Amino acid sequence: MTYCVGMKLKAGLVFMSDTRTNAGIDSISVFKKMSSWSVPGERVITLLSSGNLATTQAVVSIIDERSKAVKERAPSILEAPSMFQVARLVGNTLRDVIQMHANGPGQRADTTFNSTLILGGQIGDGPSRLFMIYPEGNFIEASSDTPFFQIGEAKYGKPIIVRAYNPDMSFEDAVKLLLVSFDSTIKSNLSVGLPIDVQFCGEGERAVTHEFRINDANPYYRAISSGWSNALRTAFNALEPFSLDHVKPG
Amino acid sequence: MTYCVGMKLKAGLVFMSDTRTNAGIDSISVFKKMSSWSVPGERVITLLSSGNLATTQAVVSIIDERSKAVKERAPSILEAPSMFQVARLVGNTLRDVIQMHANGPGQRADTTFNSTLILGGQIGDGPSRLFMIYPEGNFIEASSDTPFFQIGEAKYGKPIIVRAYNPDMSFEDAVKLLLVSFDSTIKSNLSVGLPIDVQFCGEGERAVTHEFRINDANPYYRAISSGWSNALRTAFNALEPFSLDHVKPG
Repeated sequence: MTYCVGMKLKAGLVFMSDTRTNAGIDSISVFKKMSSWSVPGERVITLLSSGNLATTQAVVSIIDERSKAVKERAPSILEAPSMFQVARLVGNTLRDVIQMHANGPGQRADTTFNSTLILGGQIGDGPSRLFMIYPEGNFIEASSDTPFFQIGEAKYGKPIIVRAYNPDMSFEDAVKLLLVSFDSTIKSNLSVGLPIDVQFCGEGERAVTHEFRINDANPYYRAISSGWSNALRTAFNALEPFSLDHVKPG
Repeated sequence: MTYCVGMKLKAGLVFMSDTRTNAGIDSISVFKKMSSWSVPGERVITLLSSGNLATTQAVVSIIDERSKAVKERAPSILEAPSMFQVARLVGNTLRDVIQMHANGPGQRADTTFNSTLILGGQIGDGPSRLFMIYPEGNFIEASSDTPFFQIGEAKYGKPIIVRAYNPDMSFEDAVKLLLVSFDSTIKSNLSVGLPIDVQFCGEGERAVTHEFRINDANPYYRAISSGWSNALRTAFNALEPFSLDHVKPG
């Protein structure tokens, strides 16, 4: 499986993705699920992928080839006039790739070739925008009501984001929050694993501001992982104790 | 959907279940998912159910009729010599009910009639035992390594249990922990809802020691729900802040 989050802050867009892929429980590999294209200062586009690895790699490769040989293979996401148009291009590409393998000639598989994507970026004078793209090629956009998207194993790590997210938080605080969310997921589900890729695109910079990878030897990740366990236990102990008086009738 | 947890403590068995059932998003009802049978001092047996409501109600009714008219309809869980035998009886009943509706004569449905159960209790001189029973009728038993079972929407509320569970905790602390786990789930998923049923069977009592229902007007539940949000934010803020120095090479 996978766990990826894209999050919209006033300060910009934060992306975080794990790197574990598995075909069954005994075929585990490390693949980067974060891809970026940019013309620094003019546009930056980042894609996070979950689902069938062949599908997501094909989508990324097609987008990549189009963006490198612009004249040969239109349309390119580096020429699209808005993030909405980029989302349409990526969505169409995703739908076509799935369609080709699911319903094309050749052997049929028992599994689907589905993939779900998070797309974020900023073009020209437009604001940073964040989308979730479905296997059918359609998509939804983040708003102030729903300022983050998760794909893959999203449930374990959702409660802490729901409770601690704040649109005014800094990039650094967002990384801390997402590392807690990722750590909760990694502790609960074998199909999500380190290392973790992190990227930040500052609002108005139209470029990748920061990009780094966190592995299990990283002292900060270890501090967060053990520190959060202790903090949770402390917080839990500080809650008012339950007693049967709380449920006595009358 | 559903969320139920059965947990084994040194002090006894704790059960908690939500009461929301839904057929689609626009057909929501309240049903108790916790059933108990006991001969106080001799045996106590509790069942938590998730999945197809018709299946789980049929299973409970069949068990119920057998236990009320023992001579007519053997085998009864009130006569089984051990919790293992009770688990076999319940597992076989579950498998038979699913089989009857899934493959019997009459109209076929697009959905499955699956259900997963948590069974716990204590009989005679035996210890308290806790089982998870699958739709196929087979089952697994909790141990000191895996001292609790969750069924239904288990993922949101798992991380806090994994981190705060302690076999020495009191019944009251276990209720507090499970209320936090249920609150995290209810906040994240519409298919799990209040009121919550709680039951405790003290080790060696072979009877239901405590049983009560918590609804959304309960002051303690409200205090836990808002208190935990604050406690999480406080705990999160107390964690060491992230800085880019933590990921600088060298």
